[in-house]
Amino acid sequence: MGATARKLQPKSIAGRQYQPYLEASWGIKNHWYPAAFSSELPERGTKGVMIAGHEIVLRRSRGKVYALQDRCIHRWVRMSDKPLRVSDDHMTCWYHGFCYGLEDGVLKTIIGAPEDPIINQVKIRTYPVQEINGLIFLFVGDEDYKPIPPLAADLPIRITDVPNPPGHPLDKEVYVRGIHRTANSNWRLAVENGFDPGHILIHYDNILMAATERKLYLGAEPITPAAVKMIDEPDGPKGIMNMYYDQSAYRMVQENPIVKMKVRGRVDYPVRTSMYLPGVLLVENWPLQGWAQYEWYVPTDDQHHEYWEVVVHPCHNADEREEADYLYEGAFEKIALRDFNDRDIFAREAMQKVYGSGKGWDKEVLCSMDTIIVGWRKLVSQFNRGIQEPPDFLE
Amino acid sequence: MGATARKLQPKSIAGRQYQPYLEASWGIKNHWYPAAFSSELPERGTKGVMIAGHEIVLRRSRGKVYALQDRCIHRWVRMSDKPLRVSDDHMTCWYHGFCYGLEDGVLKTIIGAPEDPIINQVKIRTYPVQEINGLIFLFVGDEDYKPIPPLAADLPIRITDVPNPPGHPLDKEVYVRGIHRTANSNWRLAVENGFDPGHILIHYDNILMAATERKLYLGAEPITPAAVKMIDEPDGPKGIMNMYYDQSAYRMVQENPIVKMKVRGRVDYPVRTSMYLPGVLLVENWPLQGWAQYEWYVPTDDQHHEYWEVVVHPCHNADEREEADYLYEGAFEKIALRDFNDRDIFAREAMQKVYGSGKGWDKEVLCSMDTIIVGWRKLVSQFNRGIQEPPDFLE
Amino acid sequence: MGATARKLQPKSIAGRQYQPYLEASWGIKNHWYPAAFSSELPERGTKGVMIAGHEIVLRRSRGKVYALQDRCIHRWVRMSDKPLRVSDDHMTCWYHGFCYGLEDGVLKTIIGAPEDPIINQVKIRTYPVQEINGLIFLFVGDEDYKPIPPLAADLPIRITDVPNPPGHPLDKEVYVRGIHRTANSNWRLAVENGFDPGHILIHYDNILMAATERKLYLGAEPITPAAVKMIDEPDGPKGIMNMYYDQSAYRMVQENPIVKMKVRGRVDYPVRTSMYLPGVLLVENWPLQGWAQYEWYVPTDDQHHEYWEVVVHPCHNADEREEADYLYEGAFEKIALRDFNDRDIFAREAMQKVYGSGKGWDKEVLCSMDTIIVGWRKLVSQFNRGIQEPPDFLE
Repeated sequence: MGATARKLQPKSIAGRQYQPYLEASWGIKNHWYPAAFSSELPERGTKGVMIAGHEIVLRRSRGKVYALQDRCIHRWVRMSDKPLRVSDDHMTCWYHGFCYGLEDGVLKTIIGAPEDPIINQVKIRTYPVQEINGLIFLFVGDEDYKPIPPLAADLPIRITDVPNPPGHPLDKEVYVRGIHRTANSNWRLAVENGFDPGHILIHYDNILMAATERKLYLGAEPITPAAVKMIDEPDGPKGIMNMYYDQSAYRMVQENPIVKMKVRGRVDYPVRTSMYLPGVLLVENWPLQGWAQYEWYVPTDDQHHEYWEVVVHPCHNADEREEADYLYEGAFEKIALRDFNDRDIFAREAMQKVYGSGKGWDKEVLCSMDTIIVGWRKLVSQFNRGIQEPPDFLE
Repeated sequence: MGATARKLQPKSIAGRQYQPYLEASWGIKNHWYPAAFSSELPERGTKGVMIAGHEIVLRRSRGKVYALQDRCIHRWVRMSDKPLRVSDDHMTCWYHGFCYGLEDGVLKTIIGAPEDPIINQVKIRTYPVQEINGLIFLFVGDEDYKPIPPLAADLPIRITDVPNPPGHPLDKEVYVRGIHRTANSNWRLAVENGFDPGHILIHYDNILMAATERKLYLGAEPITPAAVKMIDEPDGPKGIMNMYYDQSAYRMVQENPIVKMKVRGRVDYPVRTSMYLPGVLLVENWPLQGWAQYEWYVPTDDQHHEYWEVVVHPCHNADEREEADYLYEGAFEKIALRDFNDRDIFAREAMQKVYGSGKGWDKEVLCSMDTIIVGWRKLVSQFNRGIQEPPDFLE
Repeated sequence: MGATARKLQPKSIAGRQYQPYLEASWGIKNHWYPAAFSSELPERGTKGVMIAGHEIVLRRSRGKVYALQDRCIHRWVRMSDKPLRVSDDHMTCWYHGFCYGLEDGVLKTIIGAPEDPIINQVKIRTYPVQEINGLIFLFVGDEDYKPIPPLAADLPIRITDVPNPPGHPLDKEVYVRGIHRTANSNWRLAVENGFDPGHILIHYDNILMAATERKLYLGAEPITPAAVKMIDEPDGPKGIMNMYYDQSAYRMVQENPIVKMKVRGRVDYPVRTSMYLPGVLLVENWPLQGWAQYEWYVPTDDQHHEYWEVVVHPCHNADEREEADYLYEGAFEKIALRDFNDRDIFAREAMQKVYGSGKGWDKEVLCSMDTIIVGWRKLVSQFNRGIQEPPDFLE
């Protein structure tokens, strides 16, 4: 085949120091992932999701959210395909009326066969759930994984090194709002796009950048090891940060004479980005100063991910909430979450063909701006709690 | 993978006593299957069908229906893709004018090469045809299978044990009308849904049930061996029957206290169901008392089946026919064949993902109401006339 | 499986004398193929194409057309997916601003990382281009293939044996116009349809044939070896011609009594067809006398081809061009290129299922009219400059 990358030098510095990452097509397991916004699951509501190949049904009963295996063990249909609400204590399969206890997943009765001997003898698995600030998180992985780590260990660190720190999803008084949608790429391509220091070009013509006259450097070349910071809190988040606030660690690229391009914009405030296992991005000072955007790239199957975009801001009263709603509805969702980040989805999907075949990892020619991406791959290889196997019902 | 059926007891009674059935993804061969309604094939008409992977072209000439291999041996295009009617004696390929005798499939001439030496030296295969009461049946399987069994051996038995027995498709004076459509599941999932004693729940809210105030028990638990009857007529139909008319064989479930559900309806008349090789259902007393519904689940390929729904009723004159048309057009097709049975298609397709991968047969956890389904699987394993191989032109 | 071609005689004369042809699913390599009409690539325009599995980006800069590998070696996205025009000297990737020299494919700069050490050290491959008479041709195959043969060697011969010879795409004063579109069959099925002497039947009801009262014989049976001529010019085109102008070489079939068909039409002028490597058809005297139609069947992947239809006519001044435009727009494109040739696309696609699985080549039963098709298969097997391998980024 003609398409070759003829290399005049020996291959990149990346090497093969992150083999577990390359095997994580279906995600990493035994981590907390967002599954739904609270608003998507009203009382008595049912919702089916797929996370890292796990088909899971969410059910809210008397206010509490339960998560169970979304396949009835009888004939293996998805119970969420046709929600049946005959009882607040059970998840009932629409096909033959198998009723599973919401708390323990045990088969409590069969509607039309209340004397059947398998009753109370079989069960479906359940998943740990946490609901906070409008977000429903599930702990997805091995059924017997213990102990379940705290949710905070799978979220970005709480920022404390700046004057007005951004909000955090676990804060008490906080505004949390966003969207999620399915995108057609493996989750790893999404993560690598999310905090990629070199992908500024695709956002060059964004309304938000132009309207706020934000200074958009052509690039940021790391010149000292301080440019990238590893985050490894004991029993806490594992992540990696682009230290853009420390401009002595970077040479900011003002122009490129070969293509005659120059920096644009006037206002100079950096957005700092950091990425955490199992694939959670924190963008500080975004969409506007003082705000923060959190993103998750939740593996669906090996070729899709659920893209979560959530903006967070400290919020202490109804007035502040109204102001936040005004900004979110009037500008953030349209201009930032959609128009701006649509370009990112485009980029991830453009990588999918070659990486999806598994060949991209060998064919890519990385450069100096990819140092942090290599760091991320090593980080995941080191700190994941297990590589997710594909579902066993696929060929 | 997380989705597991943790079993607190050793596995089901089903065992592996029906291996041939598990291998019959493409259907069982050397059986009679319906291919078209007579009304779909007018004089000089051409129609292509696929049954159990066999591509077959139907052609009506001077009233008689012929069935031939629907691939011209020259360049292997389907002749039915672009019907060409240059002669009443031949099936002519639209591409290069190869003309095959309707009776014997022999290449009789090539329109533009009447002197070609292969003329009269090659042939395509033909299939036995029977047309009766508006239904066209084909015998599909091995070309050299002998002797061809009678069509009646592949139809439900004629019911004689009730006062006003329902009509049979081979009756002399009978009303036969229905529809067929393609559904996205393997044929076996369709069969197993068709006479499944435990799937009442999906029909609970049907108009027909409500309008006729029919009593709908929550379930029927078999309590004696008489609940299921094997049918094994010498040289005749092989089938299995839910003996619902014998209510001493069942405990009818009136309520389920755990989910607080009770039986509904007032009028008590049972519908009896039985299933025959190669996958033909008889539902007595349906859609209304005195009627019968016959269903076929004809394998198309290994992931689709053609779903046939035909209602049958004794009919001796034009008045009775008019009355039957009134019922069929005004109620049966809309409320029974479509609305009611649409739920069944939904259920079959919901099983396809896990069973289509071949894993469902291992993962399923059967219960007492599935006894007859296991019986059916053994019946097919014992009495099929051959397991259909996949077409040889697929990879 | 039932669909069999029972042969009463031993298999066809074809044998297995053309194994390389059977392996050429992705096309033959190191040949010239049309990639775009000049009108599709305006100044500063960018266009992505796929030829024989090669993803190639075309770019016009200062009038000249360049062709480069359409995958940036960094993250392997297609550069044509989102054309970026920051410089007339470079092909710039929209994702991270990698800028490749149009002439040599060398990485000249990275917009946001102008100091990166890989700059000037890596390259993407380029493809030879020729643009003539509104057609852009690429030489597709091995990067190091040498010497590049002249374009004329991959085009039909220049016709000189008739009084008013038709135009040739390389002529100085010539009218060249047409269309191209994607069709769903392997390129070889398209070629074999293009000059197939026996496929007249599918064109029987064409407007152009009826309106010009052209005599359409039922067939042409070759009776002497002169019916087929091999073309093997030293360093020039390799092809094969149906010698329809020499009617002593054929028995023209006037009628077929078995199906009672007779020749139609009144005006008797033959169209002569010939086919050349890498799959270029010349139809003389078509769509009208004195014109010629050229067709290419450019492999896209192994299941699709780009179908090119171009009419050519000598043209020496503006008046003749206006007359040609009148004919082209008023009749040729609608009636010939589309309506007439649509039937050919239908036929190719009808062959795809069985040939696409690779089984058609074994199952087909060829006859005497296929002699020239067998000749073509041998010709390709003998004279191709290499069998194209599949792209290496597919599984």
